[in-house]
Amino acid sequence: MYLSARGYEVCVVDNFAKREWEREIGVRPLIPIASLEQRSAAWRELTGRAIAIETGDLTDYGFVDQVVRRFQPEAIVHYGEQPSAPYSMIDVAHATYTQSNNVVGTLNVLFAMRDVAPDAHLVKLGTMGEYGTPNIDIEEGYLTVQHNGRSHEFLYPKTAGSLYHLSKVHDSHNIHFACRIWGLRATELNQGVVYGLETDETARDPRLVTSFHYDEVFGTALNRFCVQAVAGEPITPYGRGGQTRGYINIRDTMACIELAVRNPADRGELRVYNQFTEQFTVNELAEAVTSAARELGYEPRVIHAANPRVEAEDHYYNAKHTKLVELGLVPNLLGPELIRSMLTTIARHADRIDRSKLMMGIRWAPSERH
Amino acid sequence: MYLSARGYEVCVVDNFAKREWEREIGVRPLIPIASLEQRSAAWRELTGRAIAIETGDLTDYGFVDQVVRRFQPEAIVHYGEQPSAPYSMIDVAHATYTQSNNVVGTLNVLFAMRDVAPDAHLVKLGTMGEYGTPNIDIEEGYLTVQHNGRSHEFLYPKTAGSLYHLSKVHDSHNIHFACRIWGLRATELNQGVVYGLETDETARDPRLVTSFHYDEVFGTALNRFCVQAVAGEPITPYGRGGQTRGYINIRDTMACIELAVRNPADRGELRVYNQFTEQFTVNELAEAVTSAARELGYEPRVIHAANPRVEAEDHYYNAKHTKLVELGLVPNLLGPELIRSMLTTIARHADRIDRSKLMMGIRWAPSERH
Repeated sequence: MYLSARGYEVCVVDNFAKREWEREIGVRPLIPIASLEQRSAAWRELTGRAIAIETGDLTDYGFVDQVVRRFQPEAIVHYGEQPSAPYSMIDVAHATYTQSNNVVGTLNVLFAMRDVAPDAHLVKLGTMGEYGTPNIDIEEGYLTVQHNGRSHEFLYPKTAGSLYHLSKVHDSHNIHFACRIWGLRATELNQGVVYGLETDETARDPRLVTSFHYDEVFGTALNRFCVQAVAGEPITPYGRGGQTRGYINIRDTMACIELAVRNPADRGELRVYNQFTEQFTVNELAEAVTSAARELGYEPRVIHAANPRVEAEDHYYNAKHTKLVELGLVPNLLGPELIRSMLTTIARHADRIDRSKLMMGIRWAPSERH
Repeated sequence: MYLSARGYEVCVVDNFAKREWEREIGVRPLIPIASLEQRSAAWRELTGRAIAIETGDLTDYGFVDQVVRRFQPEAIVHYGEQPSAPYSMIDVAHATYTQSNNVVGTLNVLFAMRDVAPDAHLVKLGTMGEYGTPNIDIEEGYLTVQHNGRSHEFLYPKTAGSLYHLSKVHDSHNIHFACRIWGLRATELNQGVVYGLETDETARDPRLVTSFHYDEVFGTALNRFCVQAVAGEPITPYGRGGQTRGYINIRDTMACIELAVRNPADRGELRVYNQFTEQFTVNELAEAVTSAARELGYEPRVIHAANPRVEAEDHYYNAKHTKLVELGLVPNLLGPELIRSMLTTIARHADRIDRSKLMMGIRWAPSERH
């Protein structure tokens, strides 16, 4: 919708797998979302603009080849992956599914570009989680290393924290290969944690709302904390809460995609942008939500939950994020007003909150067996 | 056989996929090899030692779980992957098969270790090809980086040159995760290009010979050059021939596996060894084969073939390989005598050489389309 509103001709490719995963684990978005067909029809009704729909699976190469052949895209914005770290850590079946689904889907896109649309520009959703939490500054994609009197620029080395994040690391290496060896052009958007409920486009009509999750599997920290506050449940940072990550408002994610599309990489080039606007510790988020919730009359409590993940809870973190700003990104920063508005919107749908899904017990390390 | 001869109780796990791939592309080893059952029976007849066989696929988790549960291995020597770079580059189907087969098989082994044999030691076949040809020294697995006044030790960053090699890079990252997060113990053997026909064990009986390939897909440089010399075909370095790689005699590969098994990694530790003994350019190998072949009365010619790969043909290369020597590896180095003995053995089977398989036309970059 963001791109369509700005004059781009858009074709959406979807296999509706996310709705399957939601059914499988028994969660649903806080606000009901319409079917893709209904959303496309509503968008056309409101704007006069068509958004085409292709239904199929990226792991089916015949389908990918046909879609790329028919549509001849200038840019392929590739968000079509299993996106949840906890989902990938449920068990071996979910881990292997996540990695093969994401890696094979991306390889199919790369081969279709090579053979059918070699001038197209791949805009691929990466994640800041690919980097992990190294003890040195995180650069935007590449790291120049001085070693024994010589120098080399590497793709920034990755130390990811879940098998989902690793699937994205594998993608990055495969995309890097496709640019180096086949001369494709690609931009990776290493996205921070996204918060927020709406964009200008989703806010136009109830039929256009997008998926907002607060459950352990698909919900992200700030969103989950807001729902906990409204539901009168404790706000639960994992462990000590010193985990620092980059965060970005959902509105800015849309602007970043357009900036990437408008500024294509050169043939043979993989550009990498760190797509977040501010760094916070989990404790800082919990405090911000607590404070905004109090202003609205809630009585939030913060309880440090046992950390289901295996991760550093206190660490150095300094990730660069200047390239998108240089291209023109004007960030929507996190402030009390935004959190209050999130809390207010969530409160309107409070009857749909399923408290049992706030903590679902998926653990990175298996329980003791010996 | 190498481990069995030294008193280890060995169980071989195989799905016979390699024999399928050979049939698919129409190649076969130079010397006929017996079935695994026949080889195990012959070994028992000659040595009195049993080698158990489990038939099944590593991508089938139920099978992997059962085998690990039954056998309770101290060490898992994992060589069960699609091993050919050209095979992975045939087309999109072979690329996605190679990556999902290798990555899912290794993930299944890691989960089975986590849940059934958490004290077992994984000895995993990596490849020097994972590193590519960076402009700085290649260390053994890890690289300490100084950056903006701080320091961090990374898994050595990888810039692999084929989608097969990338499947091994993905494995390395997944294994690193399993050691960091689950506390598994693993050793990666980043193997150089293997040459040679036999070990002490395979030489004991014709029923024990191992697979020797000279075709473009499964053959490696030195082996292929020897077969070209015997067949009176030109010896064909790809491109300018300045490509430098690490090489290792097949006898030494066996010794390295035992050294790794005898010296298990700690819990939570991923050790990485660069498993090769000497560096050569492709041109040096072609010269060595030419010279040895002349001594035996052949009249070899060297023709620089168009490079089917996309790779640097002249580059810095200095890869460390001291850790296995420190553990006791005594290398069998490449000399004229060894090459002459290879040529003599190959000559005895010259009637089985299929010249059409020396160059099969698999190319890294698709031909021009625009």
